[in-house]
Amino acid sequence: MRVGIIGLGLIGGSLARSIKLHTAHQVYGFDISPETMRQAELMEAIDGTLTDSLLPTCGVVLVATYPQAIVEWISAHAEQFAPGTLVVDCGGVKRWIVERVQPLAEGRAWHFVGGHPMAGREYSGFSYSRDNLFERASMILTPRGDEDLQVLQAAKEFFLDIGFRRVVFTTPAKHDEMIAYTSQLAHVVSGAYVNSPLAAKHKGFSAGSFADMTRVARVGEELWSELFLDNRDALLSSLNLLIDHLTEYRDALDAGDRERLKAVIRAGREKRESLDEP
Amino acid sequence: MRVGIIGLGLIGGSLARSIKLHTAHQVYGFDISPETMRQAELMEAIDGTLTDSLLPTCGVVLVATYPQAIVEWISAHAEQFAPGTLVVDCGGVKRWIVERVQPLAEGRAWHFVGGHPMAGREYSGFSYSRDNLFERASMILTPRGDEDLQVLQAAKEFFLDIGFRRVVFTTPAKHDEMIAYTSQLAHVVSGAYVNSPLAAKHKGFSAGSFADMTRVARVGEELWSELFLDNRDALLSSLNLLIDHLTEYRDALDAGDRERLKAVIRAGREKRESLDEP
Repeated sequence: MRVGIIGLGLIGGSLARSIKLHTAHQVYGFDISPETMRQAELMEAIDGTLTDSLLPTCGVVLVATYPQAIVEWISAHAEQFAPGTLVVDCGGVKRWIVERVQPLAEGRAWHFVGGHPMAGREYSGFSYSRDNLFERASMILTPRGDEDLQVLQAAKEFFLDIGFRRVVFTTPAKHDEMIAYTSQLAHVVSGAYVNSPLAAKHKGFSAGSFADMTRVARVGEELWSELFLDNRDALLSSLNLLIDHLTEYRDALDAGDRERLKAVIRAGREKRESLDEP
Repeated sequence: MRVGIIGLGLIGGSLARSIKLHTAHQVYGFDISPETMRQAELMEAIDGTLTDSLLPTCGVVLVATYPQAIVEWISAHAEQFAPGTLVVDCGGVKRWIVERVQPLAEGRAWHFVGGHPMAGREYSGFSYSRDNLFERASMILTPRGDEDLQVLQAAKEFFLDIGFRRVVFTTPAKHDEMIAYTSQLAHVVSGAYVNSPLAAKHKGFSAGSFADMTRVARVGEELWSELFLDNRDALLSSLNLLIDHLTEYRDALDAGDRERLKAVIRAGREKRESLDEP
């Protein structure tokens, strides 16, 4: 089968490499950066450039760009996909994208399923892509729910075949609520945490927890401001809850109230320990 | 030389094991838990029990208990240390401990230097101790500043010999300000972060950043409420700054203001990147 990939950054590049590693599929890729195209060909992550004439020969098309660019690209190519083609985007927000792309697929013979590969690194670009980025990762898929089950089964098998550990089906709304908490909020905290005058002096005074807290602050503001705003309500909700909890610590500390402080720390510990249970 | 260690938990146990691994010193230890004593002897982390008759024969005594217990133990044994003995505590706050222990050493022939081994794990107790816990870690020492330089040089050599990567000298106040930010604040954030109704559903929806954010929430409330309150002013200052920064993200999101949001994310990214520079 031929697989088309749009956007050969960290995610698209790693998808290409995983497909080449695990399957016999041919991969045709496209990236707006000529330098990235050259790298991807040189590293044999792709078999060639995804052209308008090759696009209708692809059985699966993966769109791994920023959210707005995902919608624009699928919209511009809605007439070119062959009947039966599975189109999956890889955007980090799902309601915003699915609401815009789903109508394009309606009444046409190709299938669209929203997707989000749950892996990443704090660096971006093809140079950081890896053929094992997804080996411990979930691929989240957010179907409408009224698809032909064979389409969903084929989608699931495709992502397991190319190296994902598992495939999780959920709704766009559920995805967005969870991702606001597990991923977007972590990026907010990391950026807020590192932005202290004390950060520059951390050497010799820090162990693992400082590194953990500040790792993902490296991400770029172009992509992440878009992702945050496309998921504004869910992220606001998680962020407000976190600020409330931090304020509980602050108030207990401010009052010098050991029992209250212990209760707050205990609540976090018990919650964390409950997550380790099978 | 004989080394005495009080408290054979994660830190005291790891110190004992590091000393046995790297030096020919004899280690005598004491822990209030008979089970821990048995484990430590069985694992050959110690050569025997640190008794009142052995204490005056130790050239170095390391006190690795909770802050209040550190002060109480040194106070109760202030008459028993031999002349020239180096006593170093391992408490995670330094002003509170040093202010109380320093006067005990004055007018006596033993030396006290406040210390803090900059390594840890999110688990506690001897069972989690390791002989390589400190191999990438700093040992922070907070002398008064008017000590005989030979005492400080000997302290430095001792900690390098037993396996620390480096020794950092600083003041108790500087230590407490830095540790409030690099370590205590991380523990506050981690506990606040994990305490969400969404946490229990994270599986399949999380990658590295959620794990990073919530790892140290496992720590116990007895020790950490004591550490937080003993360093209340410094921790409050770092926590208030973090809440202010999170509120900047929240307000930019709430306003749907992309440029403002980009500026906030960019500030964190640039700060983070500046820390990677040599």
